[in-house]
Amino acid sequence: MKYDIYVDNAATTKMSDEVLSTMLPFFTENYGNAASTHKMGSFTRKSIDNVRNIISEAIGASNPNEIYFTGTGTEADNWAIKGIAFANKNKGNHIITTSIEHHAILHPCEDLEKNYGFEITYLKVKENGIIDIENLKNAIKPTTILISVMFCNNETGAIQPINEIGAIAKQNNVYFHTDAVQALAYIPINVESMGIDLLSLSAHKLYGPKGIGALYVSNNVKIIPILHGGGQERHRRAGTQNVPAIVGFGEAVRLAKETQLNEVERLKKLTKKLIKGITENIPATKINGDETNRMPHIVNITFSFIESEGLLMFLDNRGITASGGSACSSGSFEPSHVLTAMGVSTHESHGSLRISLGRYNTEEDVDIIIKELPTVVSQLRKLSPAYKKYLNENS
Amino acid sequence: MKYDIYVDNAATTKMSDEVLSTMLPFFTENYGNAASTHKMGSFTRKSIDNVRNIISEAIGASNPNEIYFTGTGTEADNWAIKGIAFANKNKGNHIITTSIEHHAILHPCEDLEKNYGFEITYLKVKENGIIDIENLKNAIKPTTILISVMFCNNETGAIQPINEIGAIAKQNNVYFHTDAVQALAYIPINVESMGIDLLSLSAHKLYGPKGIGALYVSNNVKIIPILHGGGQERHRRAGTQNVPAIVGFGEAVRLAKETQLNEVERLKKLTKKLIKGITENIPATKINGDETNRMPHIVNITFSFIESEGLLMFLDNRGITASGGSACSSGSFEPSHVLTAMGVSTHESHGSLRISLGRYNTEEDVDIIIKELPTVVSQLRKLSPAYKKYLNENS
Repeated sequence: MKYDIYVDNAATTKMSDEVLSTMLPFFTENYGNAASTHKMGSFTRKSIDNVRNIISEAIGASNPNEIYFTGTGTEADNWAIKGIAFANKNKGNHIITTSIEHHAILHPCEDLEKNYGFEITYLKVKENGIIDIENLKNAIKPTTILISVMFCNNETGAIQPINEIGAIAKQNNVYFHTDAVQALAYIPINVESMGIDLLSLSAHKLYGPKGIGALYVSNNVKIIPILHGGGQERHRRAGTQNVPAIVGFGEAVRLAKETQLNEVERLKKLTKKLIKGITENIPATKINGDETNRMPHIVNITFSFIESEGLLMFLDNRGITASGGSACSSGSFEPSHVLTAMGVSTHESHGSLRISLGRYNTEEDVDIIIKELPTVVSQLRKLSPAYKKYLNENS
Repeated sequence: MKYDIYVDNAATTKMSDEVLSTMLPFFTENYGNAASTHKMGSFTRKSIDNVRNIISEAIGASNPNEIYFTGTGTEADNWAIKGIAFANKNKGNHIITTSIEHHAILHPCEDLEKNYGFEITYLKVKENGIIDIENLKNAIKPTTILISVMFCNNETGAIQPINEIGAIAKQNNVYFHTDAVQALAYIPINVESMGIDLLSLSAHKLYGPKGIGALYVSNNVKIIPILHGGGQERHRRAGTQNVPAIVGFGEAVRLAKETQLNEVERLKKLTKKLIKGITENIPATKINGDETNRMPHIVNITFSFIESEGLLMFLDNRGITASGGSACSSGSFEPSHVLTAMGVSTHESHGSLRISLGRYNTEEDVDIIIKELPTVVSQLRKLSPAYKKYLNENS
């Protein structure tokens, strides 16, 4: 029996047909360069400005011109970190982030630390994957210019206390950036009430096209560009605008917001069923990430005594597409830096599976996963001497 | 009479139907993240590796893994300049470029100069828009690490002596980068025989999608990334790969190469007819850029005594979409830096029109432009006292 079940929606999503429909006319009909002054350029420029409206409304920004389009979420993250660092280095050289950020945050931070004299504090997280807000307060110094904490984690789905972080940032007159690429689809965001100064987004995480991201930058923020050239995006991000992808991004955000309430409820029920089905039927299993403050669609499970590589291959061959963690770190032999930061041992981390549900998953998909997983985990565990020992000790 | 004539193909092109067809399955069917280890990821990874083959063959690179995908041509240019500068700063801090480069080269160079202690030599060009190779030889110092000269100019179409520049770079053990976004469609490129170490490309200039570029980086080159994060593109360009756009890029390059010989001949005839029709029927008119070493599709004309703004608006209202110069500089009141470098006065520069033909233009389009231009130029000139004086003096 070969299934067709895609549960790697945190890596990327199937683009929706509605999104594709909105994009199509912009490939072969309305193809004018949005920087051009002629009518074709004016039309595409208005079309992308319309998406600035959609996105600014979706995140509670008061001004559509605070939305800047980038090539990826990664570019938005890099820009936020380095654009703030270099624009505000006269004010201070200290940045606070967490040890569970996406590499698109961690690696620019490491570059700043290694090559440009910046000092980075990497906040630890508790076992549930959430930062201790007291640690954040204590980390702030007179030289702190930026706090960058992801809205929710892409591997575990754990949600950070964004409101509290925003308030602390404001009190201390420090910029607050959050990577919200995984959050926008399922969490209501209001940058102004939440005290967010910069926010990264990506379309392909919410049934939109790949190759388009955005950075919200409050008009109060001092930032410099990282890509120089033409005067696009108010002289802050050079490069011909990807009009079809931007238009698709707008439709994806519109759809995600329109369906958000129902989808969150539906996915919560599915993940609840999934977690119950897995933990009740497979011993020595642990769900990673906070129990309550979590995204409705991500389930990260550690199966002791197995390597997830074998598990994933088995599922893949059965037509169930899942992952071991972040796609961006796939193929690496390193244990997940997120799970490691949460105190999961290297060994256990290698036995972790991320199931990320999405718009096109049904209850039947969940039933199949619940049915298939115990068999394959059990088969794989038969190869483990440690599991035999565990069975003897617990029988 | 309202026409439908698009002659701004140097700004961007209508995506071809064949390109769209190759892209479509990658939006809603083969949407796996190319960084993922599962079958869906493996499929998209192979699909983009196939495009690396197409592009490396198209530019004569021996190894497909020397092709790195970026979000835009601008990103490729920024990466080439800064990636080389920061990776080789221990060797030297001097970069040679030209005063007619795209801003995606000039502005990163200015940033390096202003903020990072680099020294940039901006080579002048002759009246025909081409550099003097002796000036290049004389500019090289022991501290020179990079020469960046565009393959052909986006405003005038003038082609630089790439072979000679490559040879000089090799002799002096200096890297040679060229921005070839306008060149690939119409000029046979062989990076190895031409001595090119890095080469920037962009899909939307050759009937491919917007939002995708590439940088060829010879495996002998020492370069660092400018976007940090996941391990995509051999750890050199982080960010989820834009699979549909990459696939479309491949098809666009394949088609461009397949049709290159015929298209170049066809466009040469059309631009010849266009130039003849314009210069013979409109007095006080000058074609900018070298007469022989020029792209087959770009015609840049200075009409004395008028502002191109009025001309463009008039044409636009008639359904003829052209431009005053680079789209990336549109809306700027500055005269074209390219024409200025060629010795065109600010006044004359403001009267310049760029007509860039393309795959979908016909001889009829050219006939219409030849018919319409004299009338509009004459109407606009009636507003100019300087033109009256000129007429009196030349009658």
